[in-house]
Amino acid sequence: MDKHLQAAIEEAKKGLQEGGIPIGSVLVHEDKIIGRGHNRRVQKGSTILHGEMDALENAGRLPANVYKKSVLYTTLSPCSMCTGAVLLYGIPKVIIGENVTFKGEEAFLSSRGVEVIVMDDKQCIDLMTQFIKDQPTLWNEDIGK
Amino acid sequence: MDKHLQAAIEEAKKGLQEGGIPIGSVLVHEDKIIGRGHNRRVQKGSTILHGEMDALENAGRLPANVYKKSVLYTTLSPCSMCTGAVLLYGIPKVIIGENVTFKGEEAFLSSRGVEVIVMDDKQCIDLMTQFIKDQPTLWNEDIGK
Repeated sequence: MDKHLQAAIEEAKKGLQEGGIPIGSVLVHEDKIIGRGHNRRVQKGSTILHGEMDALENAGRLPANVYKKSVLYTTLSPCSMCTGAVLLYGIPKVIIGENVTFKGEEAFLSSRGVEVIVMDDKQCIDLMTQFIKDQPTLWNEDIGK
Repeated sequence: MDKHLQAAIEEAKKGLQEGGIPIGSVLVHEDKIIGRGHNRRVQKGSTILHGEMDALENAGRLPANVYKKSVLYTTLSPCSMCTGAVLLYGIPKVIIGENVTFKGEEAFLSSRGVEVIVMDDKQCIDLMTQFIKDQPTLWNEDIGK
């Protein structure tokens, strides 16, 4: 198991324990985690703190050249907002736990030159499958449906 | 002058007074402002609170059908992150103060069916022209450069 994806999964599980949506993310620069986060819709009443956004926010203000040598890990395929944040900061690579329970803007990321790797990770799939089954209304809210 | 664009400009000016980046935004539902915000990079050390994101965050958790009947006003052409947030929530219309000092993802918004109107507003242009002249490093940081 990739250690950074594992860290993103730990974030997702932390979110679930808090009563939130189990999606986690870490921003990695030169093999070191510089930001970690998870979805905070429930915990903070936030509409913008998806897991990836929370990781970017927690990484803090960084010089452009740090983003440009970083990798964003996320347990779930990124929505259009998180995709846009990746493009804003020029993050060149996104590693995705799974895209079975939700398929985001992977094709758009690729079309803009971002390397996208999907790990098809069973832990990630199981977490979201169970969550969507348990809380369909909350899940739909998180993806604007 | 459109009263909602004026409200977005007031937000931008508030940001400038706080020592921040003068970009403001309001989310309008049925002619009523339901969220207002401005860029908080400096004020909160935030990498994700662009003006539009701050307005969406301050609007709070909303049912999908509210977003789908809302208009997002922003003093400046939206970057890829804010564009992605508009698409996530299915906001059908974006009214932009100006796209002279920065041209964001207007074409992408249009390609996804969002109505985009550019007001070419002199107040908005003047605010950003002066700011970029005064603080080029901070501005570049905000757009990932």
